[in-house]
Amino acid sequence: MITPNKNTALSNSQGTNSNPSISTKSAERIKELRKKKINPTQLVKEITNGNKTALSRAITLIESRQIKHTPAINTIIEGCLPYANNSLRVGITGVPGVGKSTFIEALGNYLICQNKKVAVLAIDPSSSISHGSILGDKTRMEELVKQENAFIRPTASGDSLGGVAQKTRESIILCEAAGFDVILIETVGVGQSETMVHSMTDFFLLLKLAGAGDELQGIKRGIMEMADAIVINKADGENKKPAQQAKSEFRKALHLYPTTESGWQPKVKLASALQQQGIEEVWNMITTYENSTKENGYFQHKRKEQNKFWLLQTINDKLKANFYQQPEIKEKLKQQLKAIENNETTPFVAANFLLDLAKEL
Amino acid sequence: MITPNKNTALSNSQGTNSNPSISTKSAERIKELRKKKINPTQLVKEITNGNKTALSRAITLIESRQIKHTPAINTIIEGCLPYANNSLRVGITGVPGVGKSTFIEALGNYLICQNKKVAVLAIDPSSSISHGSILGDKTRMEELVKQENAFIRPTASGDSLGGVAQKTRESIILCEAAGFDVILIETVGVGQSETMVHSMTDFFLLLKLAGAGDELQGIKRGIMEMADAIVINKADGENKKPAQQAKSEFRKALHLYPTTESGWQPKVKLASALQQQGIEEVWNMITTYENSTKENGYFQHKRKEQNKFWLLQTINDKLKANFYQQPEIKEKLKQQLKAIENNETTPFVAANFLLDLAKEL
Repeated sequence: MITPNKNTALSNSQGTNSNPSISTKSAERIKELRKKKINPTQLVKEITNGNKTALSRAITLIESRQIKHTPAINTIIEGCLPYANNSLRVGITGVPGVGKSTFIEALGNYLICQNKKVAVLAIDPSSSISHGSILGDKTRMEELVKQENAFIRPTASGDSLGGVAQKTRESIILCEAAGFDVILIETVGVGQSETMVHSMTDFFLLLKLAGAGDELQGIKRGIMEMADAIVINKADGENKKPAQQAKSEFRKALHLYPTTESGWQPKVKLASALQQQGIEEVWNMITTYENSTKENGYFQHKRKEQNKFWLLQTINDKLKANFYQQPEIKEKLKQQLKAIENNETTPFVAANFLLDLAKEL
Repeated sequence: MITPNKNTALSNSQGTNSNPSISTKSAERIKELRKKKINPTQLVKEITNGNKTALSRAITLIESRQIKHTPAINTIIEGCLPYANNSLRVGITGVPGVGKSTFIEALGNYLICQNKKVAVLAIDPSSSISHGSILGDKTRMEELVKQENAFIRPTASGDSLGGVAQKTRESIILCEAAGFDVILIETVGVGQSETMVHSMTDFFLLLKLAGAGDELQGIKRGIMEMADAIVINKADGENKKPAQQAKSEFRKALHLYPTTESGWQPKVKLASALQQQGIEEVWNMITTYENSTKENGYFQHKRKEQNKFWLLQTINDKLKANFYQQPEIKEKLKQQLKAIENNETTPFVAANFLLDLAKEL
């Protein structure tokens, strides 16, 4: 959005006033305008050169979801795609308090020491309340955020799960094009976001704490089934013994599940992110998984299946967005929901009314 | 579909042949034609008169999902709606082998003795293999199926979950219009169908068996959280003791969940459907729930929330159906999925291609 400004280079050319301060101002203004104007081809070039500022700007563009930006977004994504797909995508989930940020910081720093480039995408679509906590996470990863080879990005909140999913999928592509070879996708294990993250990662890691009640009180049950590994965090000091006990219990529980298609038997590990213990072992496990599933073809198969799922998902998201974004529909939908609340209509009648309305728009 | 027949009343009028057998044949033929032609207003009238054949025909029409039937279907549903909404909708789930059919037959027969009219809608969208088993269920409910005041209907299989959901939602409306005051909706507790059934019922009942491993090996973990009651079936003979033990374990587990919005504390009951024990107690519990939630307003609130959900669901289903049903899209989608399989395209490019294509159609 360009704010109206009479003082442009054009309207300002009164005679031959060569006051240098004015030409400097103009130059700055033009710079500003250029900054605001998006050049998607240029952005792609900068991203593939590993420019984190460009990467960040492109993700902001994707997150804006403004219709006028759609062509630019498509150009950026299609431009980045040939450079994408070469990272390892790791999903990390766990209830609040399990120490996700500390764990990711420890893992991220370890990977950077191994000459990896690490991107962290943090997802929390649950509410604007947690928005603050995610931003908190960002600043909490104090060491990682300073690293040249790290890129940390929280998602904007207040969005639908479908919206967040698409943004994250597209952000992964961009991060990969920027040369990040490990993408850590963090999510809070209390909603439906884990299923989504599971559908876009190669390896899914569930963080747990030792101690009763955790599995019943916080985390959804289905999540354990999706995990390729459970890591019991904070396994230090007094917690060490209960953590070891929890490890053997989880191991028993995991053995009851049928073997997965990947041939991989989910593992249980102990770690103390705070004391930087167990991090290397976790990473070795993940690379073992990568190697064995690349060898038996499951890794590639899973990515293809995920791509098919994304194809349908992208279409479905777009169909919905096209429908619900229409101002007329937005307004009438609100009215119809109100009418349902007042028992004045039924879902079927209201749906048909809105669908018929859309045909006329 | 009318098969070509030269012998119609028109082409057959050769002279004045008054052979009575021909005019009888013609009459029969006209009757046949009338039968095949749908008169939705007449169907609504018959349904609201409690005619089970009409109800069955209308549900078949809904299941056909042929575009040419859409106006008729809409007329039927809108005609039935004013007579709907007066039943108690009970969802019943459990893994195969838990005795769902026997339990539903016992509960259904009990309710009919209480002068209730009972409709059973059986859902199993998982596969065509289980189609057989559901049809088996239908015949297995030998006593119930004979009752004048019972209506048993399995869903057609091989459909998407969204499709099954809409059919079931519409079938509920029709059954209610036909005067059925208890709708039992049966589903197999192994897929995502329980969440769907949960979203369209007032009370959600989970059938369990005593014995280890059941909860880990078969049923999805999230289901227990949705249950308003767990009924441990086959609590007879040697099973009685383990069932009582399981009861106290489940009770403990349920107490760990946070209190629900309804103010209802989920209950655990024992039953033996085979020996017709515990059925009355289960029904009393359900009516206690109905009374208490109608009193505190949660019952009505939940139905309104479900209606809002259905409104959005109906729109989303329709948007998808309109898109994917186009023959051109069907064909090109197949090609694009193949191209993903061969790494020749990406989900984003493929999705945009199909969406652009649809705009031109």
